[in-house]
Amino acid sequence: MEKRFDALIIGCGPAGLSAALNLQIRKKSFLILGSKVCSPWLEKAERIDNYLGFPGINGTALRDLFLDHVKKMDISIQSEKVSSIYHLGDFFVAKSGTKEYESKAIIIATGVHIEKPLEGENDYLGRGVSYCATCDGPLYRDKKVALVDFTEEEGWEEATFLSEIVDKIFYYPVKGMKTRTPLSNMEVLQEKPLALEGKDDKLQALVLENSTVPVEGLFIIRETQRADVLLPGLETKQGAIVVDENMATNVPGAFAAGDCTGKPYQLAKAVGQGGIASLSAVSFLDSRRA
Amino acid sequence: MEKRFDALIIGCGPAGLSAALNLQIRKKSFLILGSKVCSPWLEKAERIDNYLGFPGINGTALRDLFLDHVKKMDISIQSEKVSSIYHLGDFFVAKSGTKEYESKAIIIATGVHIEKPLEGENDYLGRGVSYCATCDGPLYRDKKVALVDFTEEEGWEEATFLSEIVDKIFYYPVKGMKTRTPLSNMEVLQEKPLALEGKDDKLQALVLENSTVPVEGLFIIRETQRADVLLPGLETKQGAIVVDENMATNVPGAFAAGDCTGKPYQLAKAVGQGGIASLSAVSFLDSRRA
Repeated sequence: MEKRFDALIIGCGPAGLSAALNLQIRKKSFLILGSKVCSPWLEKAERIDNYLGFPGINGTALRDLFLDHVKKMDISIQSEKVSSIYHLGDFFVAKSGTKEYESKAIIIATGVHIEKPLEGENDYLGRGVSYCATCDGPLYRDKKVALVDFTEEEGWEEATFLSEIVDKIFYYPVKGMKTRTPLSNMEVLQEKPLALEGKDDKLQALVLENSTVPVEGLFIIRETQRADVLLPGLETKQGAIVVDENMATNVPGAFAAGDCTGKPYQLAKAVGQGGIASLSAVSFLDSRRA
Repeated sequence: MEKRFDALIIGCGPAGLSAALNLQIRKKSFLILGSKVCSPWLEKAERIDNYLGFPGINGTALRDLFLDHVKKMDISIQSEKVSSIYHLGDFFVAKSGTKEYESKAIIIATGVHIEKPLEGENDYLGRGVSYCATCDGPLYRDKKVALVDFTEEEGWEEATFLSEIVDKIFYYPVKGMKTRTPLSNMEVLQEKPLALEGKDDKLQALVLENSTVPVEGLFIIRETQRADVLLPGLETKQGAIVVDENMATNVPGAFAAGDCTGKPYQLAKAVGQGGIASLSAVSFLDSRRA
């Protein structure tokens, strides 16, 4: 069996890193599973004036100080994008590609993605729609698929991986092709994808502004996984995870902090909520041990 | 008429200072009314590891950085202890001694006092019990009063002021007499005060462990004013101010942040809540202007 951690923290933005501090102080075993760039929006912030203690600091500099802080406390960050979490009775399994991590409690600090779901996206979830090419790509061997890429880099990596398996891949890079060269079996879509179309619960096509492309699979790669998709059964409201004052979600043992819990999207709030969520997770762990 | 500010922040601990940042960024007119030592507990913290960005920092050093931050943003702190706030329809009046400050919104960030009320304290509030000698002292000219002092310094100042007015003052310094010399009409109590006693709604005596002292007035001086006494009508639960997710209290225009809203007592939480409370106050102010 895999090692079962006390807790997993999903996300390495301010909320996730703040949560890690209390877990470390309280001597819990845990992992932070985060993206390569912890908090892309923080990295891009030119100047931050409202995080107490750092007047007029640059976002990248502040993020580096945050990363230094956890490093000094011997906390390491695992570069993993968790695509789904399963709550199996009294523990959680987080999947990243083909890897799995187990824990007794979980802290979700995945930030926010502002993109709306495509029309029909929810209807075809698991019936053609996937958020992880590494996980589900092999199901589409020699078939036609599309990939809608909202990310800076990750979507391209996923597309490259898919192209080696599938017959044809239609690729729509929301942030542009940059300097990339289309792959041999890739068609770069020029029109914006709008909706999904299918029959008998099976995806058949991706509907664009003025045309339609026939596909059996659609991969949608966002910087941040949608919360309700990430952990099935998790209560959300307009995309935000519903939490109580202790940052507990409706799923026992699952806590959330930061922008994924809703507006206002504020650095100080994320840090504060991360601290609360981790203390609540500690209480949860201690109560179960008693 | 006095200048009516957009907002008053009551308290200059981490929550109050954090709240000030957003009010300044959003160009609201406001004052911070705080004690001489902003956040005594922070000052005493030997080492803080869980405020993201400052690994292993000393409490006094961190507080100084916080104060530097607000100073750099041209925010000044008024040294005032607010003893009561009145909500007068669409504005607030905060009283500090004989001074009054007016505002459209208010952010309460007064921290926490852990002392329990004396038995009967609530019953004789306004009928012999007072929290401000400067305000109510003159009512007890030539009478006998007691003063229970939970503070480091302020209670002694209040006692000194009272001694010039009253016939006799019984003084109980919870933190000891230090190097002070009792005043001529002062009796320093050696027994711990336990309860209040009276008749027909009027205070008559302070009950100690083994004896009773006859008084008409009792002054209780704490570092932090009790929240429900500070703003009459404010909903509290076990001493903590009840707030919603936007840090709004049950009083329209009154917001709260930090330890005064309850456990866990955490620096990061206070800073985060201060940020939220101030944004909510900004929304409140903007909606009323519209």
